[in-house]
Amino acid sequence: MAERIWTAALAVIGDEILSGRTQDRNVAQIAVWLNAQGIRLAEVRVIADREDAIVEAVNALRGRNDYLFTTGGIGPTHDDITVDAIARAVGVDVVVHPEARAVLERHYADRGGLTDARLRMARVPEGARLIPNRMSGAPGIRYGNIFILAGVPHIAAGMLDALTGTLEGGAPLVSRTIGCWVAESEVADLLRSAEKGHPGVAIGSYPFFREGRVGANFVVRATRQALVDRCTADLTAALEHAGRQVVDGGI
Amino acid sequence: MAERIWTAALAVIGDEILSGRTQDRNVAQIAVWLNAQGIRLAEVRVIADREDAIVEAVNALRGRNDYLFTTGGIGPTHDDITVDAIARAVGVDVVVHPEARAVLERHYADRGGLTDARLRMARVPEGARLIPNRMSGAPGIRYGNIFILAGVPHIAAGMLDALTGTLEGGAPLVSRTIGCWVAESEVADLLRSAEKGHPGVAIGSYPFFREGRVGANFVVRATRQALVDRCTADLTAALEHAGRQVVDGGI
Repeated sequence: MAERIWTAALAVIGDEILSGRTQDRNVAQIAVWLNAQGIRLAEVRVIADREDAIVEAVNALRGRNDYLFTTGGIGPTHDDITVDAIARAVGVDVVVHPEARAVLERHYADRGGLTDARLRMARVPEGARLIPNRMSGAPGIRYGNIFILAGVPHIAAGMLDALTGTLEGGAPLVSRTIGCWVAESEVADLLRSAEKGHPGVAIGSYPFFREGRVGANFVVRATRQALVDRCTADLTAALEHAGRQVVDGGI
Repeated sequence: MAERIWTAALAVIGDEILSGRTQDRNVAQIAVWLNAQGIRLAEVRVIADREDAIVEAVNALRGRNDYLFTTGGIGPTHDDITVDAIARAVGVDVVVHPEARAVLERHYADRGGLTDARLRMARVPEGARLIPNRMSGAPGIRYGNIFILAGVPHIAAGMLDALTGTLEGGAPLVSRTIGCWVAESEVADLLRSAEKGHPGVAIGSYPFFREGRVGANFVVRATRQALVDRCTADLTAALEHAGRQVVDGGI
């Protein structure tokens, strides 16, 4: 029986990523976290702080994935338009969430109080629930299968922590890496055969140039460890048979 | 007269980014390079090594941007399917480019010769031109407004070098950053007014938490330096008037 594969998409919202000012860190951390939940990150879009761009991406991605995550654009300033755009995408109003308001009131009690700008961070698409944020005041937001996270990576990480174990997923993808000091082009046929011989396995080949020499790491991925181990053993044997030294764990 | 804005999209092709194994470096470097060419990176998609996903993204992105860049999937192994997918997306055959073949023959002359696997790297969509690659053997590929680059960041960088100054663009986006040790929520109104008062300017607000204190950098962006400088001066004055110390250049 084919295993059900659970997928998620991620929309990274922010001009600062598209301008090159900020190096994104959320794709990798969300990918790794999702995998531990048994959910595969299937696609990512990086989009500008523009309402129509966000609406388009949200509607394209939420329908064809089990989950949609967004990062960025939920702060107190004028360029934080994620909540409004998502509410428009799903066709509901924006309301102030009473619990979020209470959280912010407590958080800002000794920091100058809850101003209008700060109250913006209590706004949610009507019907949404909150995702706790232990790092700073403003909570994340869950609306249906959409998870709206902060853009600052350590705050997003705290929100992921709060979601750990709460999303339905399947078997996590497991992987094993082996490395060789070899040009990948010299072992391309071996790789192709090893993948073909083990249905359900995908082998990625990642070349590098280091210490003046070329090498490559081969990542064997599948949902079952036994399958990964069998394929890795066969590939290792084939590489060694061809006179190549194999480094288990990768180089 | 409104200035013509030139835009590019980027498709990052690779399971290794979606699995979280590899931290992407190409979005930021291509964004910065594009800006120097007077071209704005308008959107990015990260997609799996799956032909239908690549075809869909290429066709969505190439039509609505002046340029489309792709990274990844042009090596010699079975998981390198970018050329085939792009040829299918644009409706042409895949052919061996004679000049690419000659380049690879020279490159591999003292490295074991041009095997079938290596010859894969000379395959291009019919009608394509080559982008020189000084770093390793295999060239990048240009087909119409599509630029097919390597996934390994320093090789992609070399291909960008070869393209520098060859693409038509408009005025580059210029920016100036100022920083404040302040919670962005305390100055949200000032930011909004400064942006409103200077049409053509976008102000991004990027909060951080450092040395036990909150702060924020404000990035003022426009296509004309004079406009950026005027808006920055006004914003600085407004922040100082509100009793805030401003750090020119950002914190």
